[in-house]
Amino acid sequence: VSQQNRIHNFSAGPAVLPLSVVEELREALPNLEGTGLGLMEMSHRSKTFEAIVDSAMGRIRRVLSLPDDYEVLLLQGGASMQFCMVAMNLLQGGVADYIDTGAWSKKAAVEAQRFGDARVVWSGADVGYKRVPTNDEWTCSEGAIYTHFTSNNTIYGTQFHKPIQGEHIVCDMSSDIASRRIDGSAYDVIYAGAQKNLGPSGVTVIALSPWAVERSDPNLPSMLRYRLHVEKGSMFNTPNTLGIFFLDRVLAWIESQGMDVVEARNQRKADALYTLLDGSEFWQPIAQRDCRSLMNVSWRIADTALEPVLVQEALAAGFSGIKGHRSVGGIRASIYNACPEESVAALVGFLKEFERTRG
Amino acid sequence: VSQQNRIHNFSAGPAVLPLSVVEELREALPNLEGTGLGLMEMSHRSKTFEAIVDSAMGRIRRVLSLPDDYEVLLLQGGASMQFCMVAMNLLQGGVADYIDTGAWSKKAAVEAQRFGDARVVWSGADVGYKRVPTNDEWTCSEGAIYTHFTSNNTIYGTQFHKPIQGEHIVCDMSSDIASRRIDGSAYDVIYAGAQKNLGPSGVTVIALSPWAVERSDPNLPSMLRYRLHVEKGSMFNTPNTLGIFFLDRVLAWIESQGMDVVEARNQRKADALYTLLDGSEFWQPIAQRDCRSLMNVSWRIADTALEPVLVQEALAAGFSGIKGHRSVGGIRASIYNACPEESVAALVGFLKEFERTRG
Repeated sequence: VSQQNRIHNFSAGPAVLPLSVVEELREALPNLEGTGLGLMEMSHRSKTFEAIVDSAMGRIRRVLSLPDDYEVLLLQGGASMQFCMVAMNLLQGGVADYIDTGAWSKKAAVEAQRFGDARVVWSGADVGYKRVPTNDEWTCSEGAIYTHFTSNNTIYGTQFHKPIQGEHIVCDMSSDIASRRIDGSAYDVIYAGAQKNLGPSGVTVIALSPWAVERSDPNLPSMLRYRLHVEKGSMFNTPNTLGIFFLDRVLAWIESQGMDVVEARNQRKADALYTLLDGSEFWQPIAQRDCRSLMNVSWRIADTALEPVLVQEALAAGFSGIKGHRSVGGIRASIYNACPEESVAALVGFLKEFERTRG
Repeated sequence: VSQQNRIHNFSAGPAVLPLSVVEELREALPNLEGTGLGLMEMSHRSKTFEAIVDSAMGRIRRVLSLPDDYEVLLLQGGASMQFCMVAMNLLQGGVADYIDTGAWSKKAAVEAQRFGDARVVWSGADVGYKRVPTNDEWTCSEGAIYTHFTSNNTIYGTQFHKPIQGEHIVCDMSSDIASRRIDGSAYDVIYAGAQKNLGPSGVTVIALSPWAVERSDPNLPSMLRYRLHVEKGSMFNTPNTLGIFFLDRVLAWIESQGMDVVEARNQRKADALYTLLDGSEFWQPIAQRDCRSLMNVSWRIADTALEPVLVQEALAAGFSGIKGHRSVGGIRASIYNACPEESVAALVGFLKEFERTRG
């Protein structure tokens, strides 16, 4: 497989993955680790596969700096299923605070509302979701069981760069998990669909504090009960075995470089784009400067009529996925962990040339 | 990739898949259909991927002979999630009949019990689950909303070979879906985890009659609501894109041969094993003759002490996965669609030799 046949991929998710890991998957498909059995064709209860699950869980613990007494789950259903499971397991008719920084956080609150009093204590709707709040802009509700936030908004390109307040923090980290060093102990629940920074769609990573496991409602249907999945080591039923294998290999790719190296590269990629966008009135970045996402860079062109032209010419030049989300329009480059610096450099060059000829 | 490096795979699931389809996946991984984007690295809302979903759904309709007004869903969570979703959507406090033919059907009834009166109207427990019932052995409950059964039991190796009675039939078809011609209109709900006959784990196929869609409870959390998934074409959130691609390719492999050819081959494979097992007192098949599964052949050795010897020698000779389920012991060969006739012929030869030297 030659790298050359692949174009520059800025998809918001499912998103570009490390080519070396894609190659590892290709190797494992017909025959995993010399077992004579294909990766997808092996019992999830085999020793070979159980070692893969153990490895993946250990890597998640290390990459997220989780305390030893936290639990890790590898389930199915994506973040959308967690919108519902978080509230089913933890809310139980009580009060929870939700920070609304855009579409996904709003959906999480809507699902939670079915199971208790999910209060939107701050909403970015009034400011066009161009920024996330500081802690002094909202107050924790009395008796709030948890506070929920979405660490990175893929649509507006905003990101929290400081921890939020609250006694128990639940975070949808789907779009920036494992992109920077975090202190896992600051969260009671972290959940993330894998398909942006960690692997293919169809695997969901969940980290639970002892408090979250303890609070998990024991009367829920089996598949929706956190504690059951903890007890069964995420093997209550057959998991997405290929997805977990891939996740483990992506985490190995991250660990082999070191999180500091990955984080610094993500910073450089974002800086390269924001520096260009700040350089002239031709471009108009959407997110407020101190809330900018390192994962999704969203912007408009001052002359909005040029936006479809840019998207079309970019695709012709080998840059895929830079059309902004339909709800906000404009341009978006998603530059998750696996997006190579070369892709970002090439895009910056293309954008400069576009500005030079059309600006 | 040479076939020779793969051993004979009789795993109960995840199970052997068609090698030609595994090769198709390997091709698509770095660059799908010349798009320059890898299969796992592409938006699920792209035209390329939407065509794959449409293709997979069309193939399911044809392979299951579903009426035109039925809906097909491709979700996550496996049959275990459907144990809960079927009852959440359809039962709503009412009565349903469950036929207990072993572990999985029992689990389905337990989950349903949370949402209404799930009655086990027949249980194979008294006969060691060696057979499934005929319709005259049980009675539909008055007002039963649906009747649930598991068409094939992987553990005891039993299978229904005739439709069951009931006004609305719900069938867990995980272990024999697409292995034989069926009349889809006889069912109101069919569900199946993909990892036996259709693909990798992490994709679940669901077929719903208009009655089932209509009855679907509108007040459930989004991810658990059948009707929402119907409205969203299974794209309410990011589906398991790789799994759906693979499913489509496996169904193409089935359709290219024709279901009659696949069914006849499955019959020949099962006949080869049962003929051997019926040939001497050395072997003791578990399932009653008229209820035998064409997918999972389960048996004991009269001298049970020879069972671990057989499993060990078989593995050394290149036959994997023939140890019986821990709940029943003995030997089991799972011979789903993709298990080659050559593997079965080789296993029969090995078993004959084992009997000759140890019998």
